[in-house]
Amino acid sequence: MSLQTRAQLVDGFQSGLVSSEGLIAHGRGEAFDYLLGEKTSKFSVAAIEAACCCLLTGDHPVISVNGNFAALCSTEIVRLSNLIPARIEINLFHRSAERERLINRELEEKGAKNCLGSFSNNSNIIPGLSSNRRIVHSDGIYKADVIMVSLEDGDRTQALVNMGKKIIALDINPISRTARTADITIVDNVIRAMPVIIHTISMLKREKSIEYMQDIVRHFDNNGNLANSLKLMRSGFERL
Amino acid sequence: MSLQTRAQLVDGFQSGLVSSEGLIAHGRGEAFDYLLGEKTSKFSVAAIEAACCCLLTGDHPVISVNGNFAALCSTEIVRLSNLIPARIEINLFHRSAERERLINRELEEKGAKNCLGSFSNNSNIIPGLSSNRRIVHSDGIYKADVIMVSLEDGDRTQALVNMGKKIIALDINPISRTARTADITIVDNVIRAMPVIIHTISMLKREKSIEYMQDIVRHFDNNGNLANSLKLMRSGFERL
Repeated sequence: MSLQTRAQLVDGFQSGLVSSEGLIAHGRGEAFDYLLGEKTSKFSVAAIEAACCCLLTGDHPVISVNGNFAALCSTEIVRLSNLIPARIEINLFHRSAERERLINRELEEKGAKNCLGSFSNNSNIIPGLSSNRRIVHSDGIYKADVIMVSLEDGDRTQALVNMGKKIIALDINPISRTARTADITIVDNVIRAMPVIIHTISMLKREKSIEYMQDIVRHFDNNGNLANSLKLMRSGFERL
Repeated sequence: MSLQTRAQLVDGFQSGLVSSEGLIAHGRGEAFDYLLGEKTSKFSVAAIEAACCCLLTGDHPVISVNGNFAALCSTEIVRLSNLIPARIEINLFHRSAERERLINRELEEKGAKNCLGSFSNNSNIIPGLSSNRRIVHSDGIYKADVIMVSLEDGDRTQALVNMGKKIIALDINPISRTARTADITIVDNVIRAMPVIIHTISMLKREKSIEYMQDIVRHFDNNGNLANSLKLMRSGFERL
């Protein structure tokens, strides 16, 4: 599983979607996944439920996509975006117009329409952020009330939280700044989490009311959930 | 520190020394270093002392070099090779003639002479190994009684141990197969460990007898040392 994922990421690197720093970031994730026993935990499942409720009750949810996320999960990203529905915005830390174009093409090949990015006009600035990532689309991340981010940098997460947005982070490192700053953190491998997210969104839409979902979001305890994931990784060490 | 090291590795990747898989492997190492608090522990210092005694009392010590090791520590590798003295052999998992040539040039620029590799004639085969790494030099790894390896694959470590060689592993992951198979495992970041190794070799040569060094090697408990490093990483989790 992890060897296949690694090969998929190296392919993404060779085809220009993934940056060299993205490969290193993936390796860090592999180490944390190793400690998780390469399994989706019940804490991840709980965070996924809260995240899906948050995405479905948002007025303007957006999925922020970078190179690693696109290389590993393009089919699932497009499917999720159609299901919710939510806009997709490409937003890169190591930005290049070429890499953005390639990621957009990859998503369009999987059926995405009208992905946002710095190639689309009408951009705006995230206050208090110095990296390239501060430039976002007015109809996308800038306007969003709920944003799902993956494999994120802590600075951007903090800046988006400061703007009053609800942040859902897919981050397998429970001690990262993003994990601790986000409103809902899914401590899991994106490869395993995305199919569970898609399944959960379908189930919630079919079976649950808006009130039920708002209630789940209101009662989700991110710090408690993170502490449980951390405890699980510690016991991963004991096991080994 | 870790950002600078990461930049150095990405440079090594761009100049052709490091493979894309090497970048991912580095990321895994970063996660373990994070848990170590990015410090050299007293357990690393103890393993370094045993490793240096083993290198100095060997009849034919060899330092095995791959792309990541060369990209991060070429100056220290050459210095260590001159001090012991020990031969340097370039041996790559993701082998290419071009990458071997570039690593050799990098080491020669730092003063290395006569590095061994598959470019030199007179090769031999490590029994029981299927990867490209099985091809080694007759006067290098094949003949060596003590081999220092870094950022290693478990299969080769096992095959070399099966040949009766003493293996010293620089591996920041205390639960890897290499870490558990080697005779002496230094659980540390190579960037921090190499200067300590060089310092220790100089001190031992100046101050200690062969008998003292043989005694240190004989009494070194690698499993106990690994368990202590593991315990330290666990407490790194508690701290965070």
